[in-house]
Amino acid sequence: MPSKIKISKLVVIGVGLIGGSFALALKQARAVKLVVGIGRTRANLAAALKLGVIDEATRDPALAVEGADFVLLAMPVGQMPAVMRRIAPHLAPETVVTDAGSTKRDVIAYARRHLAGHLSGFVPAHPISGTERSGAAAAFPDLYRGRNVILTPLEETAPAAAALVRSAWETCGARVLRLDAKEHDSIFAAVSHLPHVVAYALVNSLARRSNARKLFSFSAGGLRDTVRIAGSSPEMWTDICIANRDLLLEALRDYEDELARMRAAIARGDAARLRRMFEQARGAREKWLIKGRD
Amino acid sequence: MPSKIKISKLVVIGVGLIGGSFALALKQARAVKLVVGIGRTRANLAAALKLGVIDEATRDPALAVEGADFVLLAMPVGQMPAVMRRIAPHLAPETVVTDAGSTKRDVIAYARRHLAGHLSGFVPAHPISGTERSGAAAAFPDLYRGRNVILTPLEETAPAAAALVRSAWETCGARVLRLDAKEHDSIFAAVSHLPHVVAYALVNSLARRSNARKLFSFSAGGLRDTVRIAGSSPEMWTDICIANRDLLLEALRDYEDELARMRAAIARGDAARLRRMFEQARGAREKWLIKGRD
Repeated sequence: MPSKIKISKLVVIGVGLIGGSFALALKQARAVKLVVGIGRTRANLAAALKLGVIDEATRDPALAVEGADFVLLAMPVGQMPAVMRRIAPHLAPETVVTDAGSTKRDVIAYARRHLAGHLSGFVPAHPISGTERSGAAAAFPDLYRGRNVILTPLEETAPAAAALVRSAWETCGARVLRLDAKEHDSIFAAVSHLPHVVAYALVNSLARRSNARKLFSFSAGGLRDTVRIAGSSPEMWTDICIANRDLLLEALRDYEDELARMRAAIARGDAARLRRMFEQARGAREKWLIKGRD
Repeated sequence: MPSKIKISKLVVIGVGLIGGSFALALKQARAVKLVVGIGRTRANLAAALKLGVIDEATRDPALAVEGADFVLLAMPVGQMPAVMRRIAPHLAPETVVTDAGSTKRDVIAYARRHLAGHLSGFVPAHPISGTERSGAAAAFPDLYRGRNVILTPLEETAPAAAALVRSAWETCGARVLRLDAKEHDSIFAAVSHLPHVVAYALVNSLARRSNARKLFSFSAGGLRDTVRIAGSSPEMWTDICIANRDLLLEALRDYEDELARMRAAIARGDAARLRRMFEQARGAREKWLIKGRD
């Protein structure tokens, strides 16, 4: 059972699928009194208010964080430095700040630069969830149920701050784990950032053809599933790929090498070799993605 | 409404997901009296009999096709030449032979060589369906409902033979279309064969890592969907990739070029360029794979 928490004022900066679902889950658990949402577009904030995702809306993060006990940074990582700079002078010593960024080394570097006076209250985090949909209207309270949330606390992070963030995510139904920030970024370069690049590139290579319309009209479920994540937010995924580029480029190189080996076997007509490679892949998927999940 | 057909003796060579589901659909529609199944393994044939997918089983295709009015070749394409050679002397002039191969130029070349005396009764076909599961136990009668089946008839194919095959697939609930064999192979190299290679290569590039177990334990739905088709039959997909290698290598080269452009933008830190590429991909997916399906 998650420990009982009570947040008086939760500030969600970036009321999209991620931030909105976090607010809804805490509201459903009656773990929060007031949710203030900050967003860039009036339309999205209006939708968030109407849907009860947030109780108050503002476009000024500095004003919003006054008196907050919990601040979630849930906007694209590229906006972190500006937002951190803006809120830093307005944070009370006891305010806990956490984020939902998909990359952790860069968020930590931004915090060291712009939240230098508040590192004991800062808890870097990454909820492993999301769909290809975005915006407040896509938010739902069960998004995190059974999902993993990774914390990558700093040496300076106060244990009480980390414990509060852990409890909040557990209240959302998530399983909370800890990783070193670099290991986090290396793992997600491979299992998340690389697959997104693969999917975006696959769609583009087909869309570029003169007969694209006809091509896609003959596609079946295989292609649709393979490129589902090419529906993900271009802004968010650009930030992620640039922020984590050293480790993403490593993962991409491994993948391109593997693809080149398959291409060579196909070009040589080496059916035995190709079949072994396909069998390895099927075996690994079975072992780690099917059975490993139960 | 599909025209009412009545097949007295249907022979399914290769009683897997594809052949088994065809038999089940025709049985459910009461469009067939007797289904004889031919397979390589006793266990699979026993399962097919037990599940009512077939009424009789044999391991000798030559015997089975005697007196048949409809023969479906539903085994991996690599086995086509041997099976065609074996059945050719036993086909009656009125027996219609069709296949379910994912590539068409190679099947046609095999037919020209091994069914030379029976080309008027031969109707090359490709049902666009399947899941990552295989074997008779995976078969179900609704597999083809709403799906496309492509016919690529020869000049020699008798209109009556093509009409019977069309009606049989329509009876299964499918939409039947015609394409030139080379255009078929080019389209499916892009929308089907390439995505399989992409998925197999992605799994292998992750599975190769020393921390593979940990990596996969952090994967989420994005990776799982992207590599779902890496669960497909290695034997079948090896045959397909080798049979269609010229057109697959073209599609693979386009994809590798696209990937290289994304890699270059990531390496340069060119966020604007990367974002445009991601936006193109999201737009194309939306236009052709989401809206285009309704």
